[in-house]
Amino acid sequence: MCELLGMSANVPTDICFSFTGLMQRGGNTGPHCDGWGITFYNGKGYQNFKDPSPSCASRIAQLVQQYPIKSCAVISHIRQANRGEVSLVNTHPFTRELWGHYWTFAHNGQLTGYDTLDTGRFEPVGDTDSERAFCWLLSQLETSFPGGRPEPEKLYAKLAACCDELRQLGVYNMLLSDGFVVATYCTNNLYWITRRAPFGKASLIDEEVTIDFQQETTPNDVVTVIATQPLTNNEQWTRMLMGELCVFKHGEVVYRKDGSAHPVVPPTQK
Amino acid sequence: MCELLGMSANVPTDICFSFTGLMQRGGNTGPHCDGWGITFYNGKGYQNFKDPSPSCASRIAQLVQQYPIKSCAVISHIRQANRGEVSLVNTHPFTRELWGHYWTFAHNGQLTGYDTLDTGRFEPVGDTDSERAFCWLLSQLETSFPGGRPEPEKLYAKLAACCDELRQLGVYNMLLSDGFVVATYCTNNLYWITRRAPFGKASLIDEEVTIDFQQETTPNDVVTVIATQPLTNNEQWTRMLMGELCVFKHGEVVYRKDGSAHPVVPPTQK
Repeated sequence: MCELLGMSANVPTDICFSFTGLMQRGGNTGPHCDGWGITFYNGKGYQNFKDPSPSCASRIAQLVQQYPIKSCAVISHIRQANRGEVSLVNTHPFTRELWGHYWTFAHNGQLTGYDTLDTGRFEPVGDTDSERAFCWLLSQLETSFPGGRPEPEKLYAKLAACCDELRQLGVYNMLLSDGFVVATYCTNNLYWITRRAPFGKASLIDEEVTIDFQQETTPNDVVTVIATQPLTNNEQWTRMLMGELCVFKHGEVVYRKDGSAHPVVPPTQK
Repeated sequence: MCELLGMSANVPTDICFSFTGLMQRGGNTGPHCDGWGITFYNGKGYQNFKDPSPSCASRIAQLVQQYPIKSCAVISHIRQANRGEVSLVNTHPFTRELWGHYWTFAHNGQLTGYDTLDTGRFEPVGDTDSERAFCWLLSQLETSFPGGRPEPEKLYAKLAACCDELRQLGVYNMLLSDGFVVATYCTNNLYWITRRAPFGKASLIDEEVTIDFQQETTPNDVVTVIATQPLTNNEQWTRMLMGELCVFKHGEVVYRKDGSAHPVVPPTQK
């Protein structure tokens, strides 16, 4: 399996704190040794950093932890390979253009029978189940709306239906962004937390780091962090339900399709 | 204008030396303050670093100079904006998928009348002449060979014809790679040098750095570096002719379409 980390914020915010926790799971507190990647949007443009070597020992990951790149939409992933060899081409997140925007995607889980997914014009370059699912998803969206990007409600409803289909093939936890919205879909492990005033302190689970967000923020900041497992042990994370789609914009929930069932196992968080 | 830097090699080679020279032109020895980017291929996968801030002061550029990422195909660019605002979305190089490979593109020059170029399914995300030219180019290649990627000679001949068309719109110096070949096209400023045994010493023009390639290489290494201006002052760089297309693979020239004219001005190199 892998781990996902996403962020949606109403002001450009750095993700150094959460990323520091995630990176420890790449070979240190977690077994996810098979590469990592992170994409920061700035408007319609993006910066990406990726490395097929373990995140806990990566010079590039070190830079990303220490150099506060501020963004309103971030997608990150650390990989434990199950489908596709360990290589740069198979390292998430993946990015493709659709409707004049770059879409970025990362997946946690494992699919079967994905070879037959028709990806249309979005040809996979690597050989992971994840990239093929992403290409299929974009192809479905494009062919469903031949007139171009539809209004948000229609887009998100179609996205949810596509994710439900992918969930039939196995575990499908997903982060997807066009730089403005961050869409999340849960099969079994996806949690989120929205931080806003009054801000408090948070302590990482994976490393002895505590941050006082009040020192780092202004009263109007709204920042949502999404992860496959909670990254802090003194905050209340919301666990998503199986089959739930949640879309965040500027840190707020702007669309939610209820999950069809309760989580597979009860939340372990307080 | 901007500056281009490319590399094609038969063994994974780092580009730290050349990149160090190029980065000085991003606000220090040159006026190219409007961002920079570099893409390293590893097989079909790639790593990209880009930053809309000046390269000579960029923390990310510093990492790329100090951290030897080894690759057989590299494309880099530093920008002085003329078409399109200074922003991440307009920062070269640009990457898109075609025929199951990621293609990466950087452009030096300035085009007029590019708004009407039909880019087909390859929609530009930013608003530069360069990205539109790239999208048009890929669309032309795809529609010319509906059966998929043709044999190399046919592909390169079509590529040359497309580049000739773009040159009618202005100055068009180009680097293009799929990770295996590096194609170069010259309107007025593009130079290359192939280094092979016996290796010697080279001194950067833009910074007081000398390297002894013999210490860094094995006897079978073949490394070609391409740049809009020579980066060293004690080596013989080959100046490309106007309208010339040169394709490198594993550091060697594998295809060459002669330029239709001599360089606009005589080479300034020895």
